[in-house]
Amino acid sequence: MNNKERAQRIKMILMDVDGTLTDGLLFVLPDGREIKSYHVRDGMGILMARLAGFKTGIITGKTSEGLKIRAEKLKITELYQGIIHKKKVFFEILDKHSLQAEETAYIGDDLGDLPVIKLAGFSGAVADAHAEIKKHSHLICQTPGGKGAVREFIEFIFDSQNKWPLIEKNLNQLKNKDLF
Amino acid sequence: MNNKERAQRIKMILMDVDGTLTDGLLFVLPDGREIKSYHVRDGMGILMARLAGFKTGIITGKTSEGLKIRAEKLKITELYQGIIHKKKVFFEILDKHSLQAEETAYIGDDLGDLPVIKLAGFSGAVADAHAEIKKHSHLICQTPGGKGAVREFIEFIFDSQNKWPLIEKNLNQLKNKDLF
Amino acid sequence: MNNKERAQRIKMILMDVDGTLTDGLLFVLPDGREIKSYHVRDGMGILMARLAGFKTGIITGKTSEGLKIRAEKLKITELYQGIIHKKKVFFEILDKHSLQAEETAYIGDDLGDLPVIKLAGFSGAVADAHAEIKKHSHLICQTPGGKGAVREFIEFIFDSQNKWPLIEKNLNQLKNKDLF
Amino acid sequence: MNNKERAQRIKMILMDVDGTLTDGLLFVLPDGREIKSYHVRDGMGILMARLAGFKTGIITGKTSEGLKIRAEKLKITELYQGIIHKKKVFFEILDKHSLQAEETAYIGDDLGDLPVIKLAGFSGAVADAHAEIKKHSHLICQTPGGKGAVREFIEFIFDSQNKWPLIEKNLNQLKNKDLF
Repeated sequence: MNNKERAQRIKMILMDVDGTLTDGLLFVLPDGREIKSYHVRDGMGILMARLAGFKTGIITGKTSEGLKIRAEKLKITELYQGIIHKKKVFFEILDKHSLQAEETAYIGDDLGDLPVIKLAGFSGAVADAHAEIKKHSHLICQTPGGKGAVREFIEFIFDSQNKWPLIEKNLNQLKNKDLF
Repeated sequence: MNNKERAQRIKMILMDVDGTLTDGLLFVLPDGREIKSYHVRDGMGILMARLAGFKTGIITGKTSEGLKIRAEKLKITELYQGIIHKKKVFFEILDKHSLQAEETAYIGDDLGDLPVIKLAGFSGAVADAHAEIKKHSHLICQTPGGKGAVREFIEFIFDSQNKWPLIEKNLNQLKNKDLF
Repeated sequence: MNNKERAQRIKMILMDVDGTLTDGLLFVLPDGREIKSYHVRDGMGILMARLAGFKTGIITGKTSEGLKIRAEKLKITELYQGIIHKKKVFFEILDKHSLQAEETAYIGDDLGDLPVIKLAGFSGAVADAHAEIKKHSHLICQTPGGKGAVREFIEFIFDSQNKWPLIEKNLNQLKNKDLF
Repeated sequence: MNNKERAQRIKMILMDVDGTLTDGLLFVLPDGREIKSYHVRDGMGILMARLAGFKTGIITGKTSEGLKIRAEKLKITELYQGIIHKKKVFFEILDKHSLQAEETAYIGDDLGDLPVIKLAGFSGAVADAHAEIKKHSHLICQTPGGKGAVREFIEFIFDSQNKWPLIEKNLNQLKNKDLF
């Protein structure tokens, strides 16, 4: 089975955060809170994924207030923070949404992602991922984490499923507002 | 018609923000506000565009308080935030300033910019723009978004219209102050 | 003696901060405090070093509140801030932990690190280190400071000592929580 | 005259800030203040310049509170902010310190620096400087602005004047403290 065929079955897109949806940098404030950056082109990708009918979700080892707000803005379906053992949460999400592993895509960058990378129906590694992640992923993105790798991964799925006409139609019906 | 000829007709320079005037990174604060970075060489370019007699404008899909302040400092003529449907706003701006599309330049990076990229008299793509934007732009900048791509685009127009002597003369008449 | 043999003797991993555990950037706030960024993959590496039984430590020329908080989260064994004369502190640490210089690894980027680079049993330079540091280090990392160079250095030691099975076992026993 | 000879006469080192001592990025806070980043290796270079007996100075077109604090920490001799017309200030500094233009080095990145680049006894351009600046500078640094270009420029002067033994001696006499 090739990547196009793998991507054609996907109904839900899951992702890691630090190093994947971000560039891995943690700005530690004097009070201990961490600020990090998200890329606008990933945000646009997640908005379009919703418009194309995909469920989305985040499983991350860390915890931050900013991520909660960002996930709400992007209407991400599932958000699990502070998760070291991602495999268990992956199966919980499948169960909750009555999905099979092969209907689920996952993109990550580091060893904590490896168990889910091995299970997901279509898995992606950011361009600067750990060598073990690249080794076990179906698609190695050309874009590094936090610079649009998630967008690249998502567009591969859009292309495989010919989702662009639906996305364009639904984009045209959005109200002008800060949505991504 | 070549790019020099296209650039010679320009009277107003419009631009996208996230991924174009910025590098696309959004630092989400715990209270949900987003901080992003602008490049000083783009600021200097926009100052010089004003001194050379160009109108300037911003059409952006997102909204931020920092951008409002930055646009005021740079005396940008038009600022439209939270705009998903940029084409409509583009025509409003033309109408307000009694300009034709071919007298207007536009630079962007992502799919939301595509309708205006196709309409503008002279269009630019940042070096790291989406492939669709690069495909339809007259000039593909060598500089990525947020690192001086807008400056590169603006200087192409200055060169085409021999604006440098006027800019130098007007720079010499400025008062010492933080202007860009 | 080759690098693998050098790395096999290591019991404690010491590191510089600015330019090594960070990319060297200092964001100076209006009140004079400095914010800087740490990389999540370095954090994961330091967590795994602890799980593998290594002591860890920081000797840095600068001082910041954020670093103190980050070091506590990562349970770094020793933290010395504001140190211009690192050699003296290096020997204090050896003494306190009854270690020999050859049992200690050190990674740095700039001239202030040179005396310890020359003394440590296994020394590393980040990819963008000062030429003098690269010249005297055993391992020149492929990753720049603040982007995962510390992780690369630490994994070289894990590989040399076959620590991966122990790390995996101890990772499996961690509670779900933001740990790196 | 070659660059080594030019650098041998230098007694004072002047520099631009945005795009030179920083990477040009301006993080605009919601209240309009701008945060930017300085590189620790430039800070170490400016500390060593002081220990080697050089006067130092900043002439910048913009204004920020953070820069004032950073300049104080690094004991920079002269700080001029909000200066569009740098040539006038350059001559004021020469006059105040009874220096000739050929005894003064200057490093910059953009068109506002050009008049001083042309006057200074030894001039430098950061790796990502504007083409006009590169064209008129004696030394084109290999390092971009805000990533250590100022350090590279300063070390060229140290090398030309054999200042390293003096720097090392004076470094050894510093008290442990956050000095750069």
